[in-house]
Amino acid sequence: MLAITAVALSLPFRPAKHAGGQLTAAFRVLLVLVLALLATGLAHAEDGYDLWLRYRPLPETQAAVYRSHAAQLVLPVATPTQQATRDELLRGLGGLLGHAPAVASAVDRDGAIVVGTPASSPAVAALKLDVRALGRDGYLIRHAVVDGHAVIAIVGQDDVAALYGAFHFLRLLQTAQSIDHLDVREATRMSLRVLDHWDDLSGHVERGYAGNSIWDWQKLPDWLDPRYIDYARANASIGINGTVLNNVNANAAILTPLYLDKVKALAGVFRPYGIRVYLSVKFSAPIEIGGLKTADPLDPAVQRWWRAKADEIYALIPDFGGFLVKANSEGQPGPQDYGRTHADGANVLASALASHGGVVMWRAFVYSQHNTDDRAKQAYTEFKPLDGKFAANVLLQVKNGPIDFQPREPFNPLFGAMPKTPLMMEFQITKEYLGFATHLVYLGPLFEEVLRADTHAKGNGSTVAKVIDGELDGHTLTGIAGVANIGTDRDWNGSDFNQANWYAYGRLAWNPQLSSRVIAEEWVRATFSNDEAFVKRVVDMMMLSREAVVDYMTPLGLHHLMGKGHHYGPAPWDASGPRADWTPVYYHRADHDGIGFDRSHTGSNAVAQYAPPIAAEFDDLKTIPDAYLLWFHHVPWSYRMRSGRTLWDELVMHYTQGVDDVKQMRATWQALDGRIDAERYRKAAVFLGIQEKEAQWWRDASIAYFQSLNGLPLPAGYAPPPQPLSYYESLSFPFVPGYRP
Amino acid sequence: MLAITAVALSLPFRPAKHAGGQLTAAFRVLLVLVLALLATGLAHAEDGYDLWLRYRPLPETQAAVYRSHAAQLVLPVATPTQQATRDELLRGLGGLLGHAPAVASAVDRDGAIVVGTPASSPAVAALKLDVRALGRDGYLIRHAVVDGHAVIAIVGQDDVAALYGAFHFLRLLQTAQSIDHLDVREATRMSLRVLDHWDDLSGHVERGYAGNSIWDWQKLPDWLDPRYIDYARANASIGINGTVLNNVNANAAILTPLYLDKVKALAGVFRPYGIRVYLSVKFSAPIEIGGLKTADPLDPAVQRWWRAKADEIYALIPDFGGFLVKANSEGQPGPQDYGRTHADGANVLASALASHGGVVMWRAFVYSQHNTDDRAKQAYTEFKPLDGKFAANVLLQVKNGPIDFQPREPFNPLFGAMPKTPLMMEFQITKEYLGFATHLVYLGPLFEEVLRADTHAKGNGSTVAKVIDGELDGHTLTGIAGVANIGTDRDWNGSDFNQANWYAYGRLAWNPQLSSRVIAEEWVRATFSNDEAFVKRVVDMMMLSREAVVDYMTPLGLHHLMGKGHHYGPAPWDASGPRADWTPVYYHRADHDGIGFDRSHTGSNAVAQYAPPIAAEFDDLKTIPDAYLLWFHHVPWSYRMRSGRTLWDELVMHYTQGVDDVKQMRATWQALDGRIDAERYRKAAVFLGIQEKEAQWWRDASIAYFQSLNGLPLPAGYAPPPQPLSYYESLSFPFVPGYRP
Repeated sequence: MLAITAVALSLPFRPAKHAGGQLTAAFRVLLVLVLALLATGLAHAEDGYDLWLRYRPLPETQAAVYRSHAAQLVLPVATPTQQATRDELLRGLGGLLGHAPAVASAVDRDGAIVVGTPASSPAVAALKLDVRALGRDGYLIRHAVVDGHAVIAIVGQDDVAALYGAFHFLRLLQTAQSIDHLDVREATRMSLRVLDHWDDLSGHVERGYAGNSIWDWQKLPDWLDPRYIDYARANASIGINGTVLNNVNANAAILTPLYLDKVKALAGVFRPYGIRVYLSVKFSAPIEIGGLKTADPLDPAVQRWWRAKADEIYALIPDFGGFLVKANSEGQPGPQDYGRTHADGANVLASALASHGGVVMWRAFVYSQHNTDDRAKQAYTEFKPLDGKFAANVLLQVKNGPIDFQPREPFNPLFGAMPKTPLMMEFQITKEYLGFATHLVYLGPLFEEVLRADTHAKGNGSTVAKVIDGELDGHTLTGIAGVANIGTDRDWNGSDFNQANWYAYGRLAWNPQLSSRVIAEEWVRATFSNDEAFVKRVVDMMMLSREAVVDYMTPLGLHHLMGKGHHYGPAPWDASGPRADWTPVYYHRADHDGIGFDRSHTGSNAVAQYAPPIAAEFDDLKTIPDAYLLWFHHVPWSYRMRSGRTLWDELVMHYTQGVDDVKQMRATWQALDGRIDAERYRKAAVFLGIQEKEAQWWRDASIAYFQSLNGLPLPAGYAPPPQPLSYYESLSFPFVPGYRP
Repeated sequence: MLAITAVALSLPFRPAKHAGGQLTAAFRVLLVLVLALLATGLAHAEDGYDLWLRYRPLPETQAAVYRSHAAQLVLPVATPTQQATRDELLRGLGGLLGHAPAVASAVDRDGAIVVGTPASSPAVAALKLDVRALGRDGYLIRHAVVDGHAVIAIVGQDDVAALYGAFHFLRLLQTAQSIDHLDVREATRMSLRVLDHWDDLSGHVERGYAGNSIWDWQKLPDWLDPRYIDYARANASIGINGTVLNNVNANAAILTPLYLDKVKALAGVFRPYGIRVYLSVKFSAPIEIGGLKTADPLDPAVQRWWRAKADEIYALIPDFGGFLVKANSEGQPGPQDYGRTHADGANVLASALASHGGVVMWRAFVYSQHNTDDRAKQAYTEFKPLDGKFAANVLLQVKNGPIDFQPREPFNPLFGAMPKTPLMMEFQITKEYLGFATHLVYLGPLFEEVLRADTHAKGNGSTVAKVIDGELDGHTLTGIAGVANIGTDRDWNGSDFNQANWYAYGRLAWNPQLSSRVIAEEWVRATFSNDEAFVKRVVDMMMLSREAVVDYMTPLGLHHLMGKGHHYGPAPWDASGPRADWTPVYYHRADHDGIGFDRSHTGSNAVAQYAPPIAAEFDDLKTIPDAYLLWFHHVPWSYRMRSGRTLWDELVMHYTQGVDDVKQMRATWQALDGRIDAERYRKAAVFLGIQEKEAQWWRDASIAYFQSLNGLPLPAGYAPPPQPLSYYESLSFPFVPGYRP
């Protein structure tokens, strides 16, 4: 509530002074209204709830220019999507420009905004624009003349595309772009742009650090929280067109009538925004809720059950998206329980959905505690032989790296290795391994690094982006999924800066070729300010943040050294059960002489899973990038790095650099105090303090542990850990969010 | 976000029209500001977050009158509490009156508001008012003359009392009371006015229906959510002065340094508002986190451990309140595990806290599955013999009724039965057994019914209120606890109307003699509107709501017929394990011939636990109130009620009446559409729809079940259940909030 005072003081006049003054009645009314709003609405206004759809008044000079291009709004309002488009434009223009233009049925003045499709809007039809080439979700924004008046036309092939265009137009104004010479043509090759919610029906969010699930299952289907609409608006504004409502560690109950009714209600809220609902299903559902004795995919009764269940769902939700499945992974049931393959399992679900136009998103994230081979190799070993064996409406959902959403991983070798199968990217937006809610880590560069990685599957330039967008192998069914970082926290994501990761994911899902820096700038302007100095410094800070977390947690290719289970904080010393491939020591393999996981030809030979040029580069110490060194090689502490330093010295320097980077980020932010509202400034400032403390903890604990193995001194000028290793080992955190022991 | 549109339309002018008009620059600024605020702040402004501290502009005629009494604010601002008092008055007066008065160091005009204590304010000291008689938290509000100027004086003996007075004064304005002849003297006999949070360290709230715990343990102690301050403001505004942060089913980890640091941070936020923190402790903590072999209260090592732990806590939190303990109850460890008594256990903790001024709140809610005697009798049997055996700083915390927070119970026989022991009332504000978040049930009448019940312990007029406020037995250490209904939901309590239960609890904790109707009116005015017609109809609806839930769930003394474990919905048929006294059939004892739990002299003789006049009244069918009939007596279905109807007919009529009452409540609310903001109106309207549906479900399922036993026809004109009993029995709800199987 402290925000009030700040705002009140920033007013151009002192309320008390004016009270007795000579004011017009209207002025009095407004004055009272303003003060009332200050005393109430604004108290929560800068709590981050608005996300990047923050339509605050632009500077008058800017607003004046835009107003001349927003004299009236001509668009159809027959369908819910058209109405949502109108409402968003009224809200956005009203907020940004001080007032919203009137809605008219036809253009009768210059400066009109014409929105729609050739089919829905006579004005648009009259323009005879060829939008077919833009594809299903594509749109264009350009100047045009309608009935002799200069207008801005926002045109798509369907309603949702027009809504996308409206959001794009508002973003141009929000981010202070010139609209004098508009010629926007936007299209996407990605057909499924999906958020995966790891939300349990209990309300708990697995790996969630922003509160509970936003799905209020108990009150659904009757109560439709207005937040659902804002969720849909936020997603539509960045082109996300699907949401998997429940955790991949699924509960079969989601497929019971009790819950399908609730799912239907949510689908109804999201439909106008072009968002389809999907469900994670448990492979053993035919047994658990179907009363069958088996879930064997080749059993006719099981196949009938899935078909009937699909029919039941589509009767309720005609545009239901399909199923996401985690099978035979980390204890989940699956086709292998019956001696069948993943393809057998996926295809049964696929055939149940096919006639309805639904898809199966089958996860490739599998590894077995009974398989003693390098965990990093298992997904490839399991799935590559199945290339070509999946039904046409199955996508294989592959995590960006071969292990599990680490601060840095080489790209997953499955990308490029299964040309006959549509591979869907799975990114993790929630920061399970990257500092939870409080660490400022902008994931744009991580996503970009993966998407731009060259698989060499079909020669140079066979980037991961081209694999998933279908270009490389000619797939039209394409997709990308992001594990959501959304919860009931007022700011949606646990911190204002985490919102940038949701935003960046959506923008890259639409166009995997975008630059993460450009996206960051867009987001900062929409979310905070167009103050150039502020934008520049905050974007620089964000761009630095990902390398910082790699350095203070797991530099030089180290990975999975986090506290077991909850993944909070450092635990490189942990070798405890229940399974080796869940322990840090399995991954770093450090001892008195050296460190690193030998995945070269002398080791697990995981390198061989990559295309020859990559395999050769990663296999050879002379060519392997420092960033992946310890991922693929076990080397002595005395190993000479390209820098000329020993590995040990280099490692210590990276850990220390990570902490220094956070200190710099913190200083940058402190220098910006006063440039934005006190509420969001203060929260980020406190969180950066937490991040610095935890970065230091990571650095000190890691160095203390590795030093206990190699007995080597720290390079000159580097401070030793302030505590003995035993202290770091003694820390325990019984109730870490996002994890349930 | 729909709220925006509604508000925009309700504006006296059309933004678009004015844009080009002849407006002064200042007017333009304000206009833009208003519209901007409408487009942003107001979008969330009516989401219930403001609770009853909703300082919206009063009608100008009213505001003008008040302004003449709020010309300036003269109060000390040296301490955090004094600053909180100033901030609240500025916020409140600014919101209600359109502008806040200037803060001055001395009175220099008529109409000043003088706030403080004789010690803190020279102006107050000059008034020579005798406030000692008001006691520690008491305050007065009256007209006075300071330095020749007419002022309103808000005076307490200490800072917090003055803060209470400030909240009281703001409430007078909020609720449109005349302040022309102020002579408020408020005092309380209740020393501990506490909220019990059943919040787990995992963030889950046991029996919570408003989201997660508001304590963000992961980010504490660094991040202090602004919501903590609003929590403190809300509590201070109704005189709540203590909060037990964690679940009575306690985890020992709360007493580790990791968590005590976090508790200290919260205590620091609450301190200025006069709120002390307390912790629920696990009796076996000396073993679990102390490394001892035993928790035997008579073991010197155990006693040393508790003393050291108390010293550790008070070193961090000098004004720490004390411990709440659930021992030897529902599986919790306790002194009886070592053959010791509850007094032995309580006194060890008490002696550890005594030197620091802390107290032990020891719960009397005990019953054993190994004790085959009537569960309703066990607490009395266990504790009455211990009267006089507890240390001076121990309070015995007794639930209002002998079973467990049912829609209606007779008062707990322990009240009046332990004159040598301070008995603390435990109410449940969260509606575990009364419809969770969605049912509109105002608990004021329930609280009032219990507090006004006459124990006859010392003759007529020995009310429960006089027992707990110490008057009856001369105790000065007195207390009352309410199990909080607070969570991370934006509206704090899961619905706007649930806020009334938090409010009513606090007002009755301050003064157990208050009328629940008066409190309801106060709350409606502060929360919604002073529109007389609206207030009257909403208060009537609220006053009707508690009898309605009794009727549609458990009429005529029936109790505990809710779904096992989660307590959602009817399950009178449930006779399943693990223990009889958790099953509905244990409580209703219905069969072909009759229904009811015989607690008369012919049965368990629980009646004998009451003072003779009450015992006689409850024991005799001729004198027992209908409301308690089946609580104390097993009677045939054909039993003739006072009404002349048979019990069965009467039961069916009550069930049906409950549903009809909800229908009436719903109609009342629908008739008020447009009287308040659309956002809160719509939510309550939808929730009332859910309540009607569930009330009907309760009625139909209960009648179907009892009819399956007695085979009797329904009275003429009463609709039979639309479904067979098997349907109601088949319903299952795997993920009910507030419960973890």
